[in-house]
Amino acid sequence: MQTATATPWADAGSVDVLLFDVFGTVVDWHGSIVREMAHAHPQVDGAAFARAWRAGYQPAMARVRSGELGWTLIDDLHRIILDTILPQFGLAHLEDAARAQLNRVWHRLDAWPDSVEGVRRLKAKYICCTLSNGNLGLLTRMAKRAGLPWDCVLSAEVFRAYKPDPATYLGAAKVFDVPPHRVMLVAAHHDDLAAARACGLRTAYVERPFEFGRDQPKDVAARAENDLHSADLLDLADRLGCPAAV
Amino acid sequence: MQTATATPWADAGSVDVLLFDVFGTVVDWHGSIVREMAHAHPQVDGAAFARAWRAGYQPAMARVRSGELGWTLIDDLHRIILDTILPQFGLAHLEDAARAQLNRVWHRLDAWPDSVEGVRRLKAKYICCTLSNGNLGLLTRMAKRAGLPWDCVLSAEVFRAYKPDPATYLGAAKVFDVPPHRVMLVAAHHDDLAAARACGLRTAYVERPFEFGRDQPKDVAARAENDLHSADLLDLADRLGCPAAV
Repeated sequence: MQTATATPWADAGSVDVLLFDVFGTVVDWHGSIVREMAHAHPQVDGAAFARAWRAGYQPAMARVRSGELGWTLIDDLHRIILDTILPQFGLAHLEDAARAQLNRVWHRLDAWPDSVEGVRRLKAKYICCTLSNGNLGLLTRMAKRAGLPWDCVLSAEVFRAYKPDPATYLGAAKVFDVPPHRVMLVAAHHDDLAAARACGLRTAYVERPFEFGRDQPKDVAARAENDLHSADLLDLADRLGCPAAV
Repeated sequence: MQTATATPWADAGSVDVLLFDVFGTVVDWHGSIVREMAHAHPQVDGAAFARAWRAGYQPAMARVRSGELGWTLIDDLHRIILDTILPQFGLAHLEDAARAQLNRVWHRLDAWPDSVEGVRRLKAKYICCTLSNGNLGLLTRMAKRAGLPWDCVLSAEVFRAYKPDPATYLGAAKVFDVPPHRVMLVAAHHDDLAAARACGLRTAYVERPFEFGRDQPKDVAARAENDLHSADLLDLADRLGCPAAV
């Protein structure tokens, strides 16, 4: 991806564990859903459909956080949102099996082109672990299909709390028996990074300008509050002193 | 390891997930502790020390199961047992840092010679996941050091219950959203397999005759109640129709 190699960060040795946000940071949910919709339901505007589905995500988790819904896995929240939006896209007729099949698209998201090699390089030096609101089964099947070589798969499911609840960031640090400042969250979302920072974690922002599609580029300007700003996971590997094999 | 290739099991296609017991089944705790003790404390009988440490394992978990101890990770149970046995081996003088370093030997256990390649082959067809009483941090560091390519790391820690509690076997099936009969436990211990079978899981026994050392061979005779009996994980891969790359 990048052409020049970044200078390694001076504090790269003070971190043991990298936690990765997944949806949008490691995998391209928008492009993957557009791809599947183009195949399964070509009459639907796949880009709008993907954004509508994703737009229901934070409100659905908020219902769990508020206690309106009991603990509910993302697979089930995705299905609730899907059932809500299908009529808006002329797909109210889809039967249960077709809905279940479509809902599992979140298990089949494609990695961004740099992700597999980026994690592979970062693993040479750091414990590389997911910290996603996606459930364990979803994350495992996604990783297996995409070839993402995680050292461990952690999820909100383990802590029964959704990010940005501190129980997730601090729970992950506790799993690896290290203080929060030896853990770094890697994410393409400043709110996730801010919540991790408030718990004492280090933070690395990853630019994913086309998370919402090429027609809706995201502001990916650097913010001073993050320890690192990286163009992608290969650039992050450079900055964390994990060179490509020579 | 084995010379002839086993005939694949007729029901190999009816299983989606392989859960692996780890201590003794995938890694050689006895040999690894003997190795470390020979280096760190050569005056101690390492084989007896390893067996004494491991002998405290089931009683320690029983204290958690009975409620005498609150939920306690294996790292902490290992340390409680270690503190108990050190005086018996003339090591009462070890200070805290040395005890902590020794306790982490459980993170540094060596895989049996067939394990990495066996899991690699089985992964081509099945979700391969740990189901160990070891905690997540321990299992992750062990896998990273030994090169064990798990798809997911599950532990009693996730379910806050120790095997043979049904919550562990059924909890793992639920994580992957499959019925128990599509999950197979792989273990070198008949009691673990029996508990899994009682929950409806399939079972595969793995011979590890020298789990307790070459001088204390274990009875590894086949028992009819298991779906499969395998000499090692390469043999299991043959029986489950996961051939070596050609």
